[in-house]
Parts: sequence; structure tokens; C-alpha cells
Amino acid sequence: MLTAHRAVVTRTRAHTSARTLFSSAYKAKQRLVILGSGWGGYEILRAIDKKRWNVIIVSPSNYFNFTPLLASCSVGTLEFRAAVEPVRRYTPDVVSYTAWCDSIDFKHKKLVCMPSTPPAHFDWTEHPTGGSDINESASTVSGSTEKFQLTYDKLVIAVGAYNQTFNVPGVKEHAHFLKDIKDARAIRTRILECFEQANQPTITDADRRKLLNFCIVGGGPTGVEFAAELHDFLHSDLARHYPALARMAKINLYDVAPVILGGFDTGLQEYATSKFKREGIRLLTQHHVERVEAGRMFVTEEGEVNFGLLVWSTGLAPNPLIQSITEAKKDERTKRSLVTNGNLNVLMKDTNAPDPDVFAIGDAALIQDEPLPATAQVANQQAKYLTRRLNRLVRSGRVDEAPFKFQNMGSLAYVGDWEAIFDRTKVERGPKGKETGRLAWLLWRSAYFTKTLSVRNKILVPMYWFLNWIFGRDLSRF
Amino acid sequence: MLTAHRAVVTRTRAHTSARTLFSSAYKAKQRLVILGSGWGGYEILRAIDKKRWNVIIVSPSNYFNFTPLLASCSVGTLEFRAAVEPVRRYTPDVVSYTAWCDSIDFKHKKLVCMPSTPPAHFDWTEHPTGGSDINESASTVSGSTEKFQLTYDKLVIAVGAYNQTFNVPGVKEHAHFLKDIKDARAIRTRILECFEQANQPTITDADRRKLLNFCIVGGGPTGVEFAAELHDFLHSDLARHYPALARMAKINLYDVAPVILGGFDTGLQEYATSKFKREGIRLLTQHHVERVEAGRMFVTEEGEVNFGLLVWSTGLAPNPLIQSITEAKKDERTKRSLVTNGNLNVLMKDTNAPDPDVFAIGDAALIQDEPLPATAQVANQQAKYLTRRLNRLVRSGRVDEAPFKFQNMGSLAYVGDWEAIFDRTKVERGPKGKETGRLAWLLWRSAYFTKTLSVRNKILVPMYWFLNWIFGRDLSRF
Repeated sequence: MLTAHRAVVTRTRAHTSARTLFSSAYKAKQRLVILGSGWGGYEILRAIDKKRWNVIIVSPSNYFNFTPLLASCSVGTLEFRAAVEPVRRYTPDVVSYTAWCDSIDFKHKKLVCMPSTPPAHFDWTEHPTGGSDINESASTVSGSTEKFQLTYDKLVIAVGAYNQTFNVPGVKEHAHFLKDIKDARAIRTRILECFEQANQPTITDADRRKLLNFCIVGGGPTGVEFAAELHDFLHSDLARHYPALARMAKINLYDVAPVILGGFDTGLQEYATSKFKREGIRLLTQHHVERVEAGRMFVTEEGEVNFGLLVWSTGLAPNPLIQSITEAKKDERTKRSLVTNGNLNVLMKDTNAPDPDVFAIGDAALIQDEPLPATAQVANQQAKYLTRRLNRLVRSGRVDEAPFKFQNMGSLAYVGDWEAIFDRTKVERGPKGKETGRLAWLLWRSAYFTKTLSVRNKILVPMYWFLNWIFGRDLSRF
Repeated sequence: MLTAHRAVVTRTRAHTSARTLFSSAYKAKQRLVILGSGWGGYEILRAIDKKRWNVIIVSPSNYFNFTPLLASCSVGTLEFRAAVEPVRRYTPDVVSYTAWCDSIDFKHKKLVCMPSTPPAHFDWTEHPTGGSDINESASTVSGSTEKFQLTYDKLVIAVGAYNQTFNVPGVKEHAHFLKDIKDARAIRTRILECFEQANQPTITDADRRKLLNFCIVGGGPTGVEFAAELHDFLHSDLARHYPALARMAKINLYDVAPVILGGFDTGLQEYATSKFKREGIRLLTQHHVERVEAGRMFVTEEGEVNFGLLVWSTGLAPNPLIQSITEAKKDERTKRSLVTNGNLNVLMKDTNAPDPDVFAIGDAALIQDEPLPATAQVANQQAKYLTRRLNRLVRSGRVDEAPFKFQNMGSLAYVGDWEAIFDRTKVERGPKGKETGRLAWLLWRSAYFTKTLSVRNKILVPMYWFLNWIFGRDLSRF
């Protein structure tokens, strides 16, 4: 709770009135600071022993994105809130700050954080007010973007990565990403907007085709699953309610590589490819996007391409926090991740020695000599491993030296029409091999289902699948 | 479907390619144009005989707001989509345009409409493109705000009203209304934002109190129900997850009148008043707001009042379409509504004769010598009456001359804590009298429940009540 952190929080500028909220710390407990609320950070938050650890989570958003469901949310197969879990679920046992971590001082075990809530657009100081409790302050709420410091005993860096744009001009301004529930909501609104715009009697068919030209750049699982969900949407609800327009719509999937779903087994790649081609999804592999403008992009092999919506998912870029770190060892190639030992401790640059108190997991981390894919699966398993160690430490005082071992559970991708491809060729334990079609789809759905954390969403997710299967997706644009 | 309206739609600027979408009209059927998708317009859309009428609905939004649930949505007791119904539900049988009606030509039975979809922020014409189907057009998608014309055989004006601000400066810019699901979403986001901002360690307690000062202007059912829902939220989920902050939060309800819930029975007014006072909701009756700025308003009786959120609901203002109409008779006092005869036909100004083909219902209409309250109940009953007449006309060719008769079903207002007040003192048929407390709450909930139109929402609404009752409301801010 807020009253637990006089010792933890020291403000760059002192405020008597603020301190009142942060009096009397738990002296006994050690302080664990978690950076990030993704597949790594949220899993630790969920399973860590909150009675024995004094837990603080710092994340720019106060929720966890259940990323495998974002593509469904972006076309309305699922409602947005069914794909997020609130960080506040564990307050007041846990202290949560909606903030970015700007920098880490490994030597003094200090963090500098920056509130991620928008500053209030107004300054209350200029006009002293009448309210008794208001008089005492002469500060401004724009102070909500003032930085603050946190100290830690143990630190988990699980900040993940940003969207990769390969510095193609205009992507950030004119394309949609699909990494956060906000992105999914923006995409859903935009799809419906494109159809409503194209439905205006004042538009030419040529412009209708431009508005209804949907482009996706990046043939990885995210791009493929979005293309698949959009295809489902287009050929069910949209075809039913905008018959003339649905016939004009096109889905185009671009990638620089010669194949889509690079990471997958070749047989499955071919399955997905031929399925997409049958369904009329244009696969534009070995195509290069040079720049993006509002409503158009320029492709080396095609020239100008007009679109109503462009979804961009070409992998991961370094998180600013990771970029800011100089003392720790980093992956030379990507510059995206901190290098850790087998126990997930961050390695220092000069000494190559592990920092016993700092851990890194997920997309922002890389185990030395044991590179793993940047997937939810890896981040989640690392979090589980780390939670076990940290709980053991406070419960028995013993340190578990066994290194982290990744267990490949196989990879799945939804390819539309109730079908998925399921690649388990690299699985160590359990049934090997690969499935496609209806069975894979069921495995896929149930995998997600059981992984969905809260009971609320365990109820809501199948509920929405059922309702939308019966009644169709909602087309209200708001 | 789109292919049904060559004759209907004539574009102010001709476009060969556009016309292709509007070939071959149903000659046989008469054309019914509905303006608005609220309690009046949507009810007609729902119940009109779509096989015998050629129905076109023109509304700036492509959904119907189930207004009684907006207050619950604004605090997360309900999810947004459970309180809207898509207009597209009836496409392709019905043609729907997301547009405003700018003006009506009663003599030639023509409408001029303006697309309400945002113009695409880009102009595709400047750079002629490679795509074969794209070449043919030289128009721009900003053309989506080009006006278009519609003709009608019968016209129903159900455009409703706008939010009344009494020209208090700054209201439109800095206050939230609560009339549309978009408003509810903005309010929910803002409430959570206020708490996340106030939770930043860098803010002073004084500024926390300012951020957590919630003001509502307007003591009608909307203002009262929002205050009640906010109080519920504050004392359940927010108190649980932000204990220190929830204690700092205040709810203030302002009104110029000496009492809240003006329309209600005096006993019920007192009940609500004392309940609110017990709950610590400040009732500031006979208070006058002079002007509003970002984060502050100026009240004659109090001086400057700082707020984190201001919700404004002080009644209805004329709809621009109604203002634009000069030929028809209007209510002198409010200037808000067209005057109709007992059959809901619009009366012409000069002749005072009813237009046999034009009807007005709901908040934008007033029956001569029989003023009725501007409520969902009235609009809905008028729509039902009109639908019966219009269906009868096309089915039997006979015109029903019996005038509209309003049946008061009583009025309800939720006052928080699972309680509502139910005023049936003015009811003609059925049990008279008034109830308060738990029973009224049940009546209230069930009344809403049965009125919620689609089966989907009949399932979702109680579902969310149940889930949020068990697990609490979601606090994710996105």
C-alpha cells in the first residue's frame, strides 16, 4: 500500500505533503522491484510470495496484455478487456507505479523513474484557490511528470522490447502496430471506419478500393494471425452487412523474406502459404517497403500502394532503458538484450561477473551461449523459474543454483477459418510432430484458454467466442 | 443493400464510378427514411416491416445507445458494447448511412446529408498510382465529406437533441457529457487516469485532492445516477486498490435548482437527498457555474473549484437540423422541437396543416397542446405507435386515425448501493405509488434488462453484473 514506502521513494524535489503518504516502511522485508508487466513481469507479480517480499512493480501501463488474443480483439472476435489483466489485482499487497524506468544505478541499487500518466493539462498554481485543503499547496500537477527514485534489494528487468521499424520513414506516424490492447482497439475502429467511409454514396469505386486495401508488413506469427482474423471477419460479418464493399476489399501480406512464418517447420509454412493463396490473401514475399505516408506506402517491387489500414509487425527493437544501460553486458548483434548467466543474473560488462541482485528475463534478456527465441513462452518460463528461486530465498534462505532450462512446448499460429498450425518438431518432452487444421485449432484455443489468467477472463473469453459465433461480431464504431 | 438506390441517391457532384453501386431500385416499395438511431429511430428500424418498406436510416453513429446503462458503463459496472446495438444489424435489408441530415426540402421531399465519418487525412489524387483499378479515379477520399441528396416518400425525424450548456464558457472544451457510449468510455478512462496520476509519488496531497475532486453539474436523473455509480465504484474497487487515495476523493453534485430530481415526487427527492448526504456526496443546490477552464470551474457561491473530472448534464439543446428548419412549426419556448398533431405528423408553419408524409418523434418533437417529458419512454412509445401505423398502411392500405396516447410507466433513478427510487405516482394503469430501496432496485434492473434489445446483450448485461459483483470492476486504463 502507499503507506509502505517512505524509505523506498525519495523525490527529486522534496514535498512535505507528499511524504505523508509514504511513512513507515516494512523494515523486515526485502524489497523486490519488478520492471515491466508483460509475460515476464506479470508472471512474477502473480506468483511471488507477497507476504515475504516487499514488492513494487513499475510499468508504463497498469495492465498485462494477453498478447495471443490481440489479433482476435482487433477484429472484434473478442472484447478488449477479455485480453488484459489488471496489475492492480494485487494491490494493496503490492505497490504499483504507472511509470517508465529511465535509468538504473547498479552500484547504489537505485532506479530513476518517470511517471507515464499524461501530465494534467493545467497548472493550478497561478490562481490560488479558496478550498482550505487546496490552499496549502503551491505545486502543479504537471509535477506528475517529475522524476522519482526507487531503491531495490533485488531487481527484475522485464521491460520487453519496442516495435521494429528498420527506420523506414513514416511507419511510426502512419502504420498501426499490434503489441498492446490500445493498438487492437485502434485497428478495430479503423477497419470499421474504412467500411463506413467506403459506404458513403459520395465516394468513387476507385477510392473505395483504396480504402478497403488492407496491408500487413511482416510475415511472422503476429502478421499472419492478424491477416487470418481479418480474413475471417471480412468473409463473415462484413460480407453479410456490406456485401458490395466486402467484394472490393483486399488483404496483402508483405515480407522481405522469401517465405512467411520463418521460424516454423517448412511443411507448415507451405500449408499456411497455400491456404492463404486459396483464400485470396495476397502474399508479397521478397518485397521491400521504402517509406510510408498517410494512406500510401512505396514498395520497391510495386511502386505506390494505397491502403486504408497498414499493420506493421516486423519484429523487435531495443527498449530505451536497455539502450541507456552501459555497465552491463549486451547482445552485440541486436543491442536489444542484456546478457545473463544460466541463473538469469545480469552480467557486468567489465568484470563479466553476474550481479547477484539484478535479473533480466524475456525479450530484453539473452542467456549467454544459449540464445532462445523472443517469445511469450520463454519469458513466462523464465519468470516461473525466477519466482521459484526468489520465493525459496526468502522462505528457506537457500539459493538454488540449478540454471534455467527452457522447455519448448511448440509453437502455434492461427491461419483463419478455425484452423491453426501447430509446430512441435522441436519439442523435447510430450508428443512430437506437427498438426494442421481443426485439431490444431482446438489445441490452439485450449492452450490460450488455460493460459488466460483470471477466472473472469476464463469465463469471458469462451463466452465471447460463443456469442460472436452465434450472433456475429459487433459492427458499432465508437 | 447498396444496390437498391440509384433513384434515391443523387450526388451533388456526379461520379460515374460511384453510381455503379446504386443501380436498379425497388420500384414497387415506398421509401421510408428514418433520421436518427436513438430511442425513437432505432425502435422504428427494429419493428418496421422491412419487406414492404424500402427503409433507409441516416444517423451520425452506426449504433443505438442504450442510454439507461451509460452511467454504469462510465464506471465499468458494464462493458461498453453491452450498452449499444448496431444499426447494421438490419443490413442489407435496410440501407444505412453514417451521416448527418443538414436540411429538409419538404416541398420536393428531398434531404441533404453530410457524411459523419472523418475525412481520410490524405489525398490520393496528387500522385496518380500504378494499380489498374486505382487509375480510373481522380477524386479524393476527402470527398467522403461531400454532401449527398436523398429523396423520401415518408420521413421520420427522430434526431433527438444536443447537450444543453446554457452558453457557459468552456463547458464544451473542458467538461464531459454523458449522452453517448463514447462519453462513457472517456469518463471511465479519465477516472482511472485521475487515480493513476494521484498515485504518482511525485504529487503533493493537495494536488491529489484536486485530481480526486469529482464534480457533476445537473441534478437530473443522469447526473444523479452517475454520482451514484461513481460513489459505488469509489467505495468498492477504488477503496480496495487505492485505499489512501480513495479517502481523499470527493463527489460534488451541483444544480441551480433548490432540489435534485426535479421531475420526481417530493418524498422520493427527499429520500435521494438524505441518502446522498449520508454517503458523503456533497449536494450543492442553488449553485451557479459561471465558466469552466481546464481543471477548474468558477462557481458564483464558491469561487474557484478545482476538479479532476467534470461531468455536465443540464438538459437538452436544439439539434442543428431542427434549428435549420423554417417551414415547420416549432415549440416557441425551447425552440428544440417540431410541433406535431396527435398522429405525430409535423405541422407546417404558415398553414398549421399536418404534412402527411413527415413525422417527428422523441426529444425533437412536441405534440400540440399535449406536452410530454423528453424521455426515452415517450420517444419509444411514439416510435411503436408510428411503426404500427406505417406497417398498417403498407399492409392494408388503411390509415389509422387514432391519435397517439402516452402511457406513463413511471420513472426510475438509481441512487447507488443497489438502490433505486421508483416514481409511479403519475401512472394511469398498473400499480400506483412509489417505492424505494432494494425492491425498486430490482424493478429498475429488470426494467432495463427486458428493455435491452438484442439477445446478445440480454446475456452480456447480467453476465457483467455478476462478474463485477464477484470479481470487482476492471481497473486497467487503456
